[in-house]
Amino acid sequence: MLVNQVAIAAAASRIDGHVIRTPLLPVKLDATSELWVKPESLQQIGAFKIRGALNAVSQVADSVREVVTHSSGNHGQALAAAAAVHGLHAIVVIPDDAPQIKIDAVRSLGAEIILVPGTQRLATAERIVAERGAVLIPPYDHDDVIAGQGTVGLEIGADFAGPATVLVPVGGGGLISGVAAALAVTRPDLRVIGVEPELAGDAAESFAAGELTSWPRSLTSRTIADGLRTELSDRTFAHISAFVSDIVTVSESLIIEAAQLLRRTTRLIVEPSGAVATAGYLAHRQLVGDRAVAVISGGNVDPAWFATNVLDPAAAQGVDNGARG
Amino acid sequence: MLVNQVAIAAAASRIDGHVIRTPLLPVKLDATSELWVKPESLQQIGAFKIRGALNAVSQVADSVREVVTHSSGNHGQALAAAAAVHGLHAIVVIPDDAPQIKIDAVRSLGAEIILVPGTQRLATAERIVAERGAVLIPPYDHDDVIAGQGTVGLEIGADFAGPATVLVPVGGGGLISGVAAALAVTRPDLRVIGVEPELAGDAAESFAAGELTSWPRSLTSRTIADGLRTELSDRTFAHISAFVSDIVTVSESLIIEAAQLLRRTTRLIVEPSGAVATAGYLAHRQLVGDRAVAVISGGNVDPAWFATNVLDPAAAQGVDNGARG
Repeated sequence: MLVNQVAIAAAASRIDGHVIRTPLLPVKLDATSELWVKPESLQQIGAFKIRGALNAVSQVADSVREVVTHSSGNHGQALAAAAAVHGLHAIVVIPDDAPQIKIDAVRSLGAEIILVPGTQRLATAERIVAERGAVLIPPYDHDDVIAGQGTVGLEIGADFAGPATVLVPVGGGGLISGVAAALAVTRPDLRVIGVEPELAGDAAESFAAGELTSWPRSLTSRTIADGLRTELSDRTFAHISAFVSDIVTVSESLIIEAAQLLRRTTRLIVEPSGAVATAGYLAHRQLVGDRAVAVISGGNVDPAWFATNVLDPAAAQGVDNGARG
Repeated sequence: MLVNQVAIAAAASRIDGHVIRTPLLPVKLDATSELWVKPESLQQIGAFKIRGALNAVSQVADSVREVVTHSSGNHGQALAAAAAVHGLHAIVVIPDDAPQIKIDAVRSLGAEIILVPGTQRLATAERIVAERGAVLIPPYDHDDVIAGQGTVGLEIGADFAGPATVLVPVGGGGLISGVAAALAVTRPDLRVIGVEPELAGDAAESFAAGELTSWPRSLTSRTIADGLRTELSDRTFAHISAFVSDIVTVSESLIIEAAQLLRRTTRLIVEPSGAVATAGYLAHRQLVGDRAVAVISGGNVDPAWFATNVLDPAAAQGVDNGARG
């Protein structure tokens, strides 16, 4: 059973008032471009993940006291924030080599942190479920999480007078599954295309082959888009197969160029993963068409990296020349 | 006659669809803080000025072919963009020592640029009015411009369940005049307080004295908040006297600290003037109260300045220590 419109509309009412209703911002590129971006970086935790976490947590809030996850990224922060909204205790299992800044971010949202060796993350989370009765909320392989992320698509459908292509970054596939499911029935004029870094192109390969293949972490970890190094699940691949038109890939230099473009035109700080959908517009205009909406998935980026690679005019010049030359 | 609710509501319908309906973003500071910001930096020209320019231009669009202004800042870009929306020709008179980047920004929006020595700006604009029949749209001393800026207040009134203090930066006073006029009758629970740099504290001094005083440009040009170096007009001082509760000032180091806070919590790039209202919350919490909405007026900032002063962690650390130590 795939997540449907009804589940996504229900998610929208559950999370209403706890998430930012992000606007569509126009980005002018050239005479014929009609690109809008949806800046989910403006959510309080800096990423769309709060939507799925809130929808999942709100449905167990009456029956349990604890929720747990094993994501050290944006989903860890999202679960902590969602649990706080509903007065639940959140436990986030984090690998003991994670950067202190990520640990601090999750802790500052009130969650309990359990540090373990990276290989023991899943087992530790499952032990907490068994021993403490906590409910596991995974980052994307969960219908309620997908339905929550789908509210991004619902909002695009409500705000945008089509037709257009909706470009969505693909990591584990939770966001694109929800967005595509939200638009599938009611807005066939809004075609959904996924965008992935070439260096973590497992979803594009799976889509083209028609069967789920996964790449080892040693390959996907090459991309700067750290939010997109994860692999699809059977569940998200099923949604993608049913609802998504295509998946395309982009180069690393174009991801940086897209982040620079977004900085110049929208004055948003975006993380590399957040710039990937916009990079898809720059790279695949012929396939995408002139009219498109690109989802900016998040803005949690190392300030020093952003200053050097996206803000600094000299660096920016170099990259622009490189990518276009 | 002061600008009223009816004029501002009419402005809102005129500009609808041509401006971004900016959301309110929560900023968490401490256990008792309830601060929201309204990010007008997300407007396509990077500042609220598009609202006033569009409202003024739309009312002359049927009767003239050309509009002119003598502002080289955000209003110059706003007028160029507003004229383009209505198919008018825009002329922007710019001092011949203005930075090339500002000249390019106005030109890229399709305006005609006339470069003159700084002292001849107003006279040149007036000559263009006389000789070419263009209509002069000044940056703030104009009822239609004030009514357009007032739509910021109308949106806050619609989106925010009061009571609270609304903090607005004060330069020429167009924004605060409009915002305060919009809220005066219908939302007395939303008290409007202006915020100014100490180094350009002419409006605070005027407000305290109850009569309009102006500071020489040699004084006001000391602040990094370059959008707030202008002086009030009789018109904007009348609105402020009628509708505004107070005007407070902030230090330069607190303006930078506020920009850093906004970067960390909202991932927005804001210009120094855009951070001033938030700095007012940091500096005057006792007067302002815990619940406040701060208007981020714009985000047009030199990238190198932002990288060094707001993004760079070492620099940020230094400033934090300075401001708090």
